Amino acid sequence: MSNLPAQVSIVEVGARDGLQNEASLITTGTKLRFIEGLVRAGLTRIEAGSFVSPKWVPQMADSADIFAELPRNANCTFSALTPNEKGMLAAIAAGVDEVAVFASASESFSRRNINCSITESLARFEPVFALAKSHNLKVRGYVSCVMGCPYEGPIAPEAVLKVSQQLLAMGCYEISLGDTIGTGTPGQTLTLLNTLITDIPVNQLAVHFHDTYGQALANILVALQQGISVIDSAAGGLGGCPYAASASGNVATEDVVYMLNGMGITNGVNIDALVAASAMIFNELDHGPASRSMRALLAKNHAVF
Amino acid sequence: MSNLPAQVSIVEVGARDGLQNEASLITTGTKLRFIEGLVRAGLTRIEAGSFVSPKWVPQMADSADIFAELPRNANCTFSALTPNEKGMLAAIAAGVDEVAVFASASESFSRRNINCSITESLARFEPVFALAKSHNLKVRGYVSCVMGCPYEGPIAPEAVLKVSQQLLAMGCYEISLGDTIGTGTPGQTLTLLNTLITDIPVNQLAVHFHDTYGQALANILVALQQGISVIDSAAGGLGGCPYAASASGNVATEDVVYMLNGMGITNGVNIDALVAASAMIFNELDHGPASRSMRALLAKNHAVF
Repeated sequence: MSNLPAQVSIVEVGARDGLQNEASLITTGTKLRFIEGLVRAGLTRIEAGSFVSPKWVPQMADSADIFAELPRNANCTFSALTPNEKGMLAAIAAGVDEVAVFASASESFSRRNINCSITESLARFEPVFALAKSHNLKVRGYVSCVMGCPYEGPIAPEAVLKVSQQLLAMGCYEISLGDTIGTGTPGQTLTLLNTLITDIPVNQLAVHFHDTYGQALANILVALQQGISVIDSAAGGLGGCPYAASASGNVATEDVVYMLNGMGITNGVNIDALVAASAMIFNELDHGPASRSMRALLAKNHAVF
Repeated sequence: MSNLPAQVSIVEVGARDGLQNEASLITTGTKLRFIEGLVRAGLTRIEAGSFVSPKWVPQMADSADIFAELPRNANCTFSALTPNEKGMLAAIAAGVDEVAVFASASESFSRRNINCSITESLARFEPVFALAKSHNLKVRGYVSCVMGCPYEGPIAPEAVLKVSQQLLAMGCYEISLGDTIGTGTPGQTLTLLNTLITDIPVNQLAVHFHDTYGQALANILVALQQGISVIDSAAGGLGGCPYAASASGNVATEDVVYMLNGMGITNGVNIDALVAASAMIFNELDHGPASRSMRALLAKNHAVF
C-alpha cells in the first residue's frame, strides 16, 4: 500500500447532502449546533447549505440564515451548492467561503434530474464561474453517477473523464467523484481512477461514495491506494437509514476516520467529538445512525441508541 | 491488485456464529429451511451447528436434530463447532462432514471466555484431533482476537502466528483468522497477514471479520490482495443488529458476494437466492438485516423491510 497519502482531508457533507435526504425537517438552530459540533471535532471543510429553490429542496431553504450565523474561523471553509446564477448570487450575498457545482457523468441522469443535457448543464454554470472569479471564490465540481446510473447502468470511465476535464477547464479546482447510487466496487473504482489519473493530477480529485451496497470503505481504500487524499463523507452516515430497505446515505465520517486512524493517516478529526455532534443531530431524526463506528463508540461510552 | 484470487470460497457461518448471537430462539424447522435456502443459493461450506453445552449456548441445543435433517448433497460440506471430546463424539454421532475447534490469540480472552490458558485450550483439542483422524474428518481451526482483544487491546501478530502454527501442527487444514471484536483496520490486516504468510501457506488461511466498526469489507479487500481466498461471512449479517448500539455481527455474505461479483471473482453464490434465504430468517428475528446489499436488493425488488 505504498501510494497511501500521509494525510487526508475530509469534506463533511452531512449538513447538506446528508440532511437534504432526510425526511425530518431540522430547525436552523439545530443545524447550527450540529455544524458547531463538526467544527469542534476538527473538520475543516464543511458543506453547510445549498442555494437552490426551496420548492425543490425544502430542507435547505434556510441556507442564508445558516451562513449568517456559522461559527466562522480561519481554519474552516464553509461551502454551498450553487446550481445556477441565481443561487450563486444568493450564495455570495450570504457570504459563502466556497461554492460547488453539480454535473453528471450520465446523460440520462442529467436529463431526468435537472432536465437538460450534460452540455447544457455546464453552460448554466458559466455565470457561476464568472461570478466566482470576480468574487475570488473557489469552485468545486461534483460529478454524479461516476460508477453507475439508475437509468443507464454502468457508466464508462471515459464519460467521467470528459465531464471532469470540462469542469476543470471551466475553473473548478477539484472534482468530487460521486458514486451516487453506491453500486461501485473496488475493481470498478480502480479502473475509473486509473483512467482519470492518466489525464488529471490526483490532487485535483476527491471521492464521494454512498454506501448503498456497503462498498464505500473498500472503495475508499482503493482510492487511497491510488493516492487520492480528499474524501467526502457525512457525520453518522446522514442521508441513510440503517433499517430502511433503500438506505443509500453517504459513507459515514466516523467509519472513514476510524479506518484512517487505524492506518496512521492524519485527518485532524477527533472521533469522539464527532460522535457527540452526530448523536445530537440523530436525536432529531426518525432513525438511528447508519455509522457502525458511531454506534460502537456510543455503546463503548455506555450511551444508548 | 495483482495478487487477487480468481476464485473465492465462502464459509457461511450465519446458522452458527450468526444465530448463536441473536436474542431470538429459532425453531429447528426454520433453521433447516434457512440452511436449505443457503444451499440453493450455491453456498458449499456451511457451518450448521455447535456441539457445546446447551446450558451455555441454548441457540445451538438442536444441532444433532439439524444434522439429522440437513439437505445433504455432494457439493456441500456441513461443519460444526466441537470444543472438546464430548462435543466431538456428539458431532460424529450426528454425522457432521467437518468439525472446527476454537482457540484465542489472546491469553486474557482465553481465560475469561473458556476459563483456561491458550496452551490448556489446545490440550483439550487433542482427543478431538484423535477422533477426527480415526473418523477421517477434517478439522478447521478458528483463532479469535487476531486484531484486538476486549481485555488486552491490540494483539501482536506473533501471538496469532504462534497459535495458528500450533493448530496446524495438531492437524487443522485451515486457520480462520477471527477479528472477534471488529476493531481491525486495513493497515493492521496487512501487517498481520504479512507476518503470517511468511510462515504459513496462504491457502491454509481464511479470514473471519466482524463488522463492528464497518471495516470488514475493506479488511477483506486487503486479504484478497494478499492472496487469501477463503472468507467467512453470515447471511444478512446475522448476529448483528443495524440499529443496536453494539452491533457486532459477522460481515454479511451479501455484501461480500456483491463486492466479489463486482471484482469478477468467482464465488458460486446466487445473490438473489441468498437474499431470499436471509429474508426468511430475518422475518423470525427482532430486527432487520445489517447487510446493506441485502436491504438494497430487497428494495430494488420492491420488497419491504
